Amino acid sequence: MSEATGETGRQRVVIDRVRPEIDGGRFAIKRTAGEKVRVEADVFTDGHDALGCLLLYRDERTAAWSEVAMEALGNDRWRGELTVSSVGRWRYTVTAWVDPWKTWRRDLRKRLDARQDVSLDLLAGAALIQAAAERVRAAGRKSEARVLTGLARALGPGRDRDAGQRGEARDRAPGQGRDDEARLRLALDDELAQLMDRHADRAAAAATYRELAVIVDRERARFSSWYEMFPRSCSPVPGRHGTFRDLAARLPDVAEMGFDVLYLPPIHPIGVTNRKGKNNAERAEPGDVGSPWAIGLAANAGGASAGGHKSIHPELGTAADFRWLVGQAREHGVELALDVAFQCSPDHPYVHEHPEWFRKRPDGSIQYAENPPKKYEDIYPFDFECDAWRELWDELKSIFLHWIGEGIRIFRVDNPHTKPFAFWEWVIGELKRDHPDVIFLAEAFTRPKLMYRLAKLGFTQSYNYFPWRTNRWELTEYFTELTRTEVAEFFRPSLWPNTPDILTEQLQFGGRAAFVQRLVLAATLGASYGIYGPPYELLESRARERGGEEYLDSEKYQLRHWDLAAPHSLRDLIALVNRVRRENPALKTDATLRFHPTDNEQLLCYSKTAESADNTIVAVVNLDPHHVQSGWVELDLARLGLDAGRPFQAHDLLTGARFLWSGSRNFVQLDPQHTPAHLFRVRRRVRSEQDFDYFQ
Amino acid sequence: MSEATGETGRQRVVIDRVRPEIDGGRFAIKRTAGEKVRVEADVFTDGHDALGCLLLYRDERTAAWSEVAMEALGNDRWRGELTVSSVGRWRYTVTAWVDPWKTWRRDLRKRLDARQDVSLDLLAGAALIQAAAERVRAAGRKSEARVLTGLARALGPGRDRDAGQRGEARDRAPGQGRDDEARLRLALDDELAQLMDRHADRAAAAATYRELAVIVDRERARFSSWYEMFPRSCSPVPGRHGTFRDLAARLPDVAEMGFDVLYLPPIHPIGVTNRKGKNNAERAEPGDVGSPWAIGLAANAGGASAGGHKSIHPELGTAADFRWLVGQAREHGVELALDVAFQCSPDHPYVHEHPEWFRKRPDGSIQYAENPPKKYEDIYPFDFECDAWRELWDELKSIFLHWIGEGIRIFRVDNPHTKPFAFWEWVIGELKRDHPDVIFLAEAFTRPKLMYRLAKLGFTQSYNYFPWRTNRWELTEYFTELTRTEVAEFFRPSLWPNTPDILTEQLQFGGRAAFVQRLVLAATLGASYGIYGPPYELLESRARERGGEEYLDSEKYQLRHWDLAAPHSLRDLIALVNRVRRENPALKTDATLRFHPTDNEQLLCYSKTAESADNTIVAVVNLDPHHVQSGWVELDLARLGLDAGRPFQAHDLLTGARFLWSGSRNFVQLDPQHTPAHLFRVRRRVRSEQDFDYFQ
Repeated sequence: MSEATGETGRQRVVIDRVRPEIDGGRFAIKRTAGEKVRVEADVFTDGHDALGCLLLYRDERTAAWSEVAMEALGNDRWRGELTVSSVGRWRYTVTAWVDPWKTWRRDLRKRLDARQDVSLDLLAGAALIQAAAERVRAAGRKSEARVLTGLARALGPGRDRDAGQRGEARDRAPGQGRDDEARLRLALDDELAQLMDRHADRAAAAATYRELAVIVDRERARFSSWYEMFPRSCSPVPGRHGTFRDLAARLPDVAEMGFDVLYLPPIHPIGVTNRKGKNNAERAEPGDVGSPWAIGLAANAGGASAGGHKSIHPELGTAADFRWLVGQAREHGVELALDVAFQCSPDHPYVHEHPEWFRKRPDGSIQYAENPPKKYEDIYPFDFECDAWRELWDELKSIFLHWIGEGIRIFRVDNPHTKPFAFWEWVIGELKRDHPDVIFLAEAFTRPKLMYRLAKLGFTQSYNYFPWRTNRWELTEYFTELTRTEVAEFFRPSLWPNTPDILTEQLQFGGRAAFVQRLVLAATLGASYGIYGPPYELLESRARERGGEEYLDSEKYQLRHWDLAAPHSLRDLIALVNRVRRENPALKTDATLRFHPTDNEQLLCYSKTAESADNTIVAVVNLDPHHVQSGWVELDLARLGLDAGRPFQAHDLLTGARFLWSGSRNFVQLDPQHTPAHLFRVRRRVRSEQDFDYFQ
Repeated sequence: MSEATGETGRQRVVIDRVRPEIDGGRFAIKRTAGEKVRVEADVFTDGHDALGCLLLYRDERTAAWSEVAMEALGNDRWRGELTVSSVGRWRYTVTAWVDPWKTWRRDLRKRLDARQDVSLDLLAGAALIQAAAERVRAAGRKSEARVLTGLARALGPGRDRDAGQRGEARDRAPGQGRDDEARLRLALDDELAQLMDRHADRAAAAATYRELAVIVDRERARFSSWYEMFPRSCSPVPGRHGTFRDLAARLPDVAEMGFDVLYLPPIHPIGVTNRKGKNNAERAEPGDVGSPWAIGLAANAGGASAGGHKSIHPELGTAADFRWLVGQAREHGVELALDVAFQCSPDHPYVHEHPEWFRKRPDGSIQYAENPPKKYEDIYPFDFECDAWRELWDELKSIFLHWIGEGIRIFRVDNPHTKPFAFWEWVIGELKRDHPDVIFLAEAFTRPKLMYRLAKLGFTQSYNYFPWRTNRWELTEYFTELTRTEVAEFFRPSLWPNTPDILTEQLQFGGRAAFVQRLVLAATLGASYGIYGPPYELLESRARERGGEEYLDSEKYQLRHWDLAAPHSLRDLIALVNRVRRENPALKTDATLRFHPTDNEQLLCYSKTAESADNTIVAVVNLDPHHVQSGWVELDLARLGLDAGRPFQAHDLLTGARFLWSGSRNFVQLDPQHTPAHLFRVRRRVRSEQDFDYFQ
């Protein structure tokens, strides 16, 4: 009988198209602790029988499932909602069964409405209750069983029970006898229905869907404000190599600007062989400091132990200094994030200790990194297809564990798309099993399918195409894809208007207005965002070459000294924007992002609403850094919970201005030389214009 | 190392989102013999290596896979196409691997374009060829191995080979020496590339997707014209019960009308107990013939063997008569289809022989069919949840086998949605394994998800909502869903403007124009369609009651006698429409259906194009049966393969009229009292107006 043998022949329920579900359950969805998962499924059976349907869920560390009833939405679609209350991995699934009691009760009502004789139906109902009693008794709950048996008797044949069986009741409405009346009341009693629901026979003709997983992270995985800074440029003395002590002195400033993650490029010793010079010159000059991503030996250190991914560049400080820095940061409410770049300079200890982890060229030399015709002779990639791949994987995992041991819980992973997908799935899974609070940011500005794949494999947050999405159509389309499709279930974008590798054309030529506009977009389109400073707040816009996105005199290859007190610094605006983010729950999620039409394509309008719906932000951004733009925005008032017939307050959190708006169409004018964006908090339930002043 | 142990650590290729794929491969897609399957997949790897990618496919009865190279479409999407050449089950999948040779060749070009030294690269290429030679030798193909070894030597170090290794070639363009030139020509030689493709190392970092299935049917599964007729109404003598002999006399007429399937309601004995009377009266009068779907004992027969689903109503004829009828039909090019209704009248032999297959009521009687408050006391449904379900399944399967043995290959299954899904999957799978030419039409006018599920489980064709889709928006939306989404891969709609259960409101009140319009829609929107005649061609429009869809004096409950020679009969039009269907390959498929805009919402315009693209039909239907409608249709000329700058002929196959159209916008006027539809064959490549007459 092929597939359908055993008891499956009696299994009549179909559960299908469960959402969310990534690639047929191959990958987990993502949430943060306390968030909800709204689950929908197609659930149906042959014929007309009624179904029972539950959403089941549990923390993977507990065996017992929690249950919540799913509600029928029509067209055989069902919905239920669960809350993942703690960090870790959770599971959920859907179970459903053909429910004879529900069927019986529904049909009884129809028969009564048609004034049919229901004598036999009441007997059938009594039998169903008695069957429930027997299930309950078999489960050892005797007193409950006694209650059910009593109810079965009460519903069973009464004094005039024989009438129905003799067919005499056929032309009489039921409920004429007193006894009948009581039995019908009992049959349709809501408490009885609930009791029977609790003791439903879920084994009958039932189906349970496959288990689906949720990765539950801490809140920072969803809401985070990153600041990237080169420690070696932190010295207060121009030309002197910065140290962890210098960096610590910058912590109050970072905290005051409102950032909660401080991300450091690699802090390891830098290779000497084939070191690049300033502005990526092919050969370094004496004194050139090299790229931190070319990880090597400490130049002035002796043994092999003073090099590699677990060591610290001597000029930055010692391991003890680093541990002290981690603590200092924590005291300022700032969490350190480290860069993990799985590659080696030719001086890296692995090159000599594990030559089997690298590919050889025909002349026996080790293959450097290249993307023909470009050559990166200061970098040796690992050969993940080597015979010793297991040992390589274990060693790379130990690098993460080393820094976890040093107090680090956030890693920004360099170029993950050039290492095998299977490695990432394994290493992130292994690490999160014991350390579910660890956050991984994927640096992969690559093809969309690779970016999404890395997120599915376990990366917590992801770089994305935000830097190059500048006009209204692009931003709307891209952020709709990221937040309104399945992508939102596994991909958490982190929005960076700049990085040490990316000085966009807009920032090069848009002046201050472009910097402000891109900051506001990043910080409000994205619950997670970051900037690379101080170049960002100091409006650094000089590119190494025309048509490129590299910074001139990039910190990647040399020390820089920044005039943090410069009057044009965006420091205060950044602090304001980050405060608005902290104070408005609407901005802590991407799930509620919606775009609203405007009649000027230089004006982008969008909103976010807090899950509790008591906090709503409407942003209007002038995308043109050069000209004043004005026009009408058309708000979806229903979506925002606003009453179309009443005025509402639009309070600009950037300028403090308050506008009284009414209806869906409202006028906006934005001067990029002043403030290229409104960030309105809109207040609902303005009861009357007199009440207006009472609203903060 | 959890999931990624073994060699999976080196497996670097991802194959994902293979399409078509139904529910993650749980169900097969459908094709007919000779059709193509266009397969697409996301295929990518980490990093920048080049991939090899093949589409694999095979008839399930053969072990060896056929291969066809897949083509990269951009954005990591790949496409390949296969043809399923024979009826049965086929499989397909996608395999891909990291291909060092393709990578090497691509990078070599880039290096040469950048005028880099490639001496070491040529050595690396030679090593790749030598490795291929060794694989080929290990496979026992020694002469091919020798060829490859020779090529490896030729590409390897030549006379001035040391120059490159000494670094002297660095500032010289390659190819200066004669030897270098020959080596480079060889390196980039296309024949060498093809040779290396043939011997690619597919084991390296490779992945193969799960196998997906195709059910391949004969052409009639895709293109069929059905005629439903009650044999008992076929008697030439009014009031006399028709016989198979009478039916045989009707075959020439059915064939002349152009139908290729003649579908008979159940031909079994009809139950007497609780038999329904004329017009579904609760009690039959003496002489009432009852509903053929209430299958019972032969009233005038003795033993149990004269009843049930394998027997024939004595008034229709004998088993021998039936076999003779099957042969007669075949001679007329008409295939008989039988109705399979898995239910019993109270007189059915199963009721007495297998009471365990039925549900009991509390009074011990057998539960009749009901949909409260409606009761169908002449019908007992099977209890598929009974303990003896296996025996029940086997018996039901044997009913199909019985009729297959009698020469039947098409079954119209009554109410499949009231039997378990698992049963249908099993029984259709079992039957098609030995009889892959069998066609099952699902009669399930039920909720959309149930209809689709039944199709996924194996039903060949499906009734659908066509009868109730009447306005332009509904028709466009519904047929777009059926033909332009995943649904098209598993659901083959059969379009019925009427059935014995469905006399739509439109047919009741739309007059002749409605009958013509619905016929043309059914026969051209659907490659498969059917009518219930003679009521259809005779414009029978009288309903039993207002607001209902039942026929007055329905043949379901009584004999009818039809005046086939009535002058208003649509017989000739039907014959014409069916001839157009046969002569135009465009109408034999639903895959190319496209809707075109019109500026009058009473005008529906759509087209179909044959796969070979040399036959195109454009239909314009006036959906209003009461008024002349006119307007402009806007054809998608590019889709139709027409030249926007040149006139083209629109030849109306219904009237014979020829129009010279040009450009995408053309005017149409349709009088429902005359012909409510154009069925244009549009001719491409009208070279000039002079050439016009040469086109037939």
